[in-house]
Amino acid sequence: MSDHVYKILELTGSSATSIEDAVANAIAKAARTVRRMQWFQVLETRGHIADGHVSHWQVTVKVGFTLEE
Amino acid sequence: MSDHVYKILELTGSSATSIEDAVANAIAKAARTVRRMQWFQVLETRGHIADGHVSHWQVTVKVGFTLEE
Amino acid sequence: MSDHVYKILELTGSSATSIEDAVANAIAKAARTVRRMQWFQVLETRGHIADGHVSHWQVTVKVGFTLEE
Amino acid sequence: MSDHVYKILELTGSSATSIEDAVANAIAKAARTVRRMQWFQVLETRGHIADGHVSHWQVTVKVGFTLEE
Amino acid sequence: MSDHVYKILELTGSSATSIEDAVANAIAKAARTVRRMQWFQVLETRGHIADGHVSHWQVTVKVGFTLEE
Amino acid sequence: MSDHVYKILELTGSSATSIEDAVANAIAKAARTVRRMQWFQVLETRGHIADGHVSHWQVTVKVGFTLEE
Amino acid sequence: MSDHVYKILELTGSSATSIEDAVANAIAKAARTVRRMQWFQVLETRGHIADGHVSHWQVTVKVGFTLEE
Amino acid sequence: MSDHVYKILELTGSSATSIEDAVANAIAKAARTVRRMQWFQVLETRGHIADGHVSHWQVTVKVGFTLEE
Amino acid sequence: MSDHVYKILELTGSSATSIEDAVANAIAKAARTVRRMQWFQVLETRGHIADGHVSHWQVTVKVGFTLEE
Amino acid sequence: MSDHVYKILELTGSSATSIEDAVANAIAKAARTVRRMQWFQVLETRGHIADGHVSHWQVTVKVGFTLEE
Amino acid sequence: MSDHVYKILELTGSSATSIEDAVANAIAKAARTVRRMQWFQVLETRGHIADGHVSHWQVTVKVGFTLEE
Amino acid sequence: MSDHVYKILELTGSSATSIEDAVANAIAKAARTVRRMQWFQVLETRGHIADGHVSHWQVTVKVGFTLEE
Repeated sequence: MSDHVYKILELTGSSATSIEDAVANAIAKAARTVRRMQWFQVLETRGHIADGHVSHWQVTVKVGFTLEE
Repeated sequence: MSDHVYKILELTGSSATSIEDAVANAIAKAARTVRRMQWFQVLETRGHIADGHVSHWQVTVKVGFTLEE
Repeated sequence: MSDHVYKILELTGSSATSIEDAVANAIAKAARTVRRMQWFQVLETRGHIADGHVSHWQVTVKVGFTLEE
Repeated sequence: MSDHVYKILELTGSSATSIEDAVANAIAKAARTVRRMQWFQVLETRGHIADGHVSHWQVTVKVGFTLEE
Repeated sequence: MSDHVYKILELTGSSATSIEDAVANAIAKAARTVRRMQWFQVLETRGHIADGHVSHWQVTVKVGFTLEE
Repeated sequence: MSDHVYKILELTGSSATSIEDAVANAIAKAARTVRRMQWFQVLETRGHIADGHVSHWQVTVKVGFTLEE
Repeated sequence: MSDHVYKILELTGSSATSIEDAVANAIAKAARTVRRMQWFQVLETRGHIADGHVSHWQVTVKVGFTLEE
Repeated sequence: MSDHVYKILELTGSSATSIEDAVANAIAKAARTVRRMQWFQVLETRGHIADGHVSHWQVTVKVGFTLEE
Repeated sequence: MSDHVYKILELTGSSATSIEDAVANAIAKAARTVRRMQWFQVLETRGHIADGHVSHWQVTVKVGFTLEE
Repeated sequence: MSDHVYKILELTGSSATSIEDAVANAIAKAARTVRRMQWFQVLETRGHIADGHVSHWQVTVKVGFTLEE
Repeated sequence: MSDHVYKILELTGSSATSIEDAVANAIAKAARTVRRMQWFQVLETRGHIADGHVSHWQVTVKVGFTLEE
Repeated sequence: MSDHVYKILELTGSSATSIEDAVANAIAKAARTVRRMQWFQVLETRGHIADGHVSHWQVTVKVGFTLEE
C-alpha cells in the first residue's frame, strides 16, 4: 500500500432513510464512472425538513481512489 | 428562494435507537412551536453509556426556518 | 456529579452495518477492561469501499470514564 | 459597555447583488422585531447558481443585541 | 435524561473581575426569562483594555435548557 | 431534490474589483465545461498587494453540480 | 529537554469554584498514579447550571508527562 | 520568489461601505510605514449595527511583506 | 469608532495564580511600549506542572491597538 | 497573475522516506495528466507503522492548476 | 480489517534533526510497551530555538493500535 | 520560566530543499533583528510547482521571544 497515489473526490449523496444510505447512494452513483475507490470520510451531515419532519438526509463525503493503471 | 431570511435555531435531541431518531425527536418537538423549518445541519454527536453499552444518543443540530409572514 | 474527574479514551470501532453499530462495537470491546464509562463523543466517521460499495464503517469516539475508586 | 449582557441570534440573508446586501437584508428583517442590535459577525458565505451564473448570495451572520430593559 | 430535547441559547456576559463572574452574570440575567437551564459551554473569551489595564472581561457561552412542559 | 448526487469542485477566481466579481469569474470559466452547477460556498478570501494597494482579489469556492444524466 | 518523549492524557476536572480549581482537581487526582507530568493545555470549558446559577465548572485538559525511566 | 522570508502583520480595517473598502483602508494605513507588502488573507468579517442598519464593516486581514533589504 | 485601523499583537503572559492574572501580566508589560490598546481575545490557555501541581498558567492573547496618531 | 482561474485537486502521496518525498510522488504522478500545476498546500500528514517503525508516510495535498487554454 | 477496534495514543517526540526523526523517536519509545501499532497522524509540529537556530523539533502524533488478543 | 512574557511573530520561510530548511531560513533571517527567540509552531506548509516538480517549500511559523530586558 506504500506507493499508491490517491486522488480525492468530494460528493454529496441523499436519502430519505438514513445517513448510511445517503453515503451509499453517493458512492454507488460515482462507481459508474470511477474505479478503484478505497475509502471515504464524512465531512458534513445536513438535511431538509418538510411539514415538521426530516424529508431527506444530505451527506457530504471525501472519497479516495487509486491512480494506478 | 432568493429573498428569504432564515433564522437559525440550535437544538439537541435524544434517542435510545439511532442518530437519525435523535434528530427526528428534536425536530418533532420544535415543530410544536416553530413553523416553516426548512433545513438542518448536524453539529455534534454524543451519547451516554450505561453498564458498558450506549444508553442513548444526543445529537445537536442547527435548524433554519424562514421569517416570512 | 460535581466532584468527579474523568479520564478520556479515544477509540475507533468498525461495523459493516451502521455508524451506531461501529460505536457500539468500540464501547463493548473497551468495556472488557474499562469500567465506569459515562459518555462518548463522535470525532470522525470514515469507511472503506470495496467493489463500489461501503464495506465497513469506521467511527472514532472519545469516551469519558470516572476515576473514582 | 462593561456590564451589558448580549443575546446572540443567527440569521441567513439573501441578495442577488452582493454579500453586503445579503447581510443588510437579514438585519433589516430582524430589526422589525429585535431592538438594540449592536454588532454582527459573518459565519458563512454561500450562494446559488443558475445557468452558469450566480443567482443570489446567502450570508449567515451572528447578531448580538443587548438584553437591557 | 434520555428523552429530553434541549434548546441552545448563545449569550455574552461581562465582568470587571473574572471570567467566572462574566459567565455568572450572563446566566443570572437569562434566568429572569429562561427556566430549566442545564449546562453551558464557553465559546470565546475576550475583553476590553483601558489605560493599559483589563477594564472588563467578555465571555460568550452556549446555554442548553430543556423544552419539557 | 431529495435523490440527487452532487459532485463538488474547488475553484479559485480572481478580480481587480471585488470578492463577488472573483467568484463570478471562477464560475463563468467553469461553466464552459461543467453543466448543472447548483450552489457554491466561499472557503477563503485572499489577494495581492502592489504599491500599497490591493491589486486583485482571489476567492476560493466549492461548487456543487448534479451528476444526473 | 530535546530528547524526551511525552505521552499525553486527556482529563476532565470539576469544581464549584473556578476554572483554575477544576484543572487543579484533575491534575491532583491524576498525580496519584501518573508521575513526571510536565504541562497541560485547556481544551474545553463547560459547566452545569442549577436554579439559574453555575453549580460547577468542568474543564477538559490535555496533560503531557515524560516516558523516561 | 523562492528565497524570500515574509513577515506577517494582522490588521483590522473599517468602512461604512463594503468589505473591500475596509480591507483597502487597513492596507493604505499600513502602507505609510510598511513597505513591500505582497499579499493578504481575510481572517474575519464583523461589523457594527446602529438603528437596525449596518453602520460599518470591520475586516481583519493577515498581510505578508518581504524582509529583503 | 468606524474609521479606526487596528494592528493586532499576539502575546503570552504567565502567572502562578490565575488565567486572569496571566492576561493582566502580558498586557501590563506590553503597555510599557504600546499605547492605545483597546481589546484582547484569549487564544490558548496552557500551563506547567511541578510535583503534581499547577506551577503557573500561560495564556496567549491577541491584543488590538489603534494606529491613529 | 490577476485574471487566472485555478482548479484545485486533492491528492495523497506516499513515501517510505520523508514527507517531502510523499508530496513529490503525488505531484509527479498527477503531472502525467494535469498540466500547469502552480502551487500546493499540505492538508494532512499520516503514516503506517510496521513492527514498531514508520513503514511509510502518507501526505494529502491540495494542488492548484490554471484553467487557461 | 473490518472488525478491529483501535485504541488511540497521543505522543510527542523530539529530534534535533527533522520532523520525521521526531516521529520515529516517539514511535520507537512507545514500541517498548505497546504492540500492534498500525498508523499515526501528525497533529502539531513545534520546536525550540537556541541562539537563533532550531535546536530541536517536537512533533505530536496520534497513534492507533489494535486491541485484538 | 513562570514570569516571562512572550511576544509572538509570524513568519514564512522558503527553501528548495525541505520543510525543515524553510523554517531554518525564516528563523535565521529574523535572528538578525530579533533576540531571545525561544520556540516556534508550524502553522501552514505550502509550496510552488514548476514543470511538474516542487520548486520550493513555503512554511509559515509562529515564533515566540521573551520581552525581558
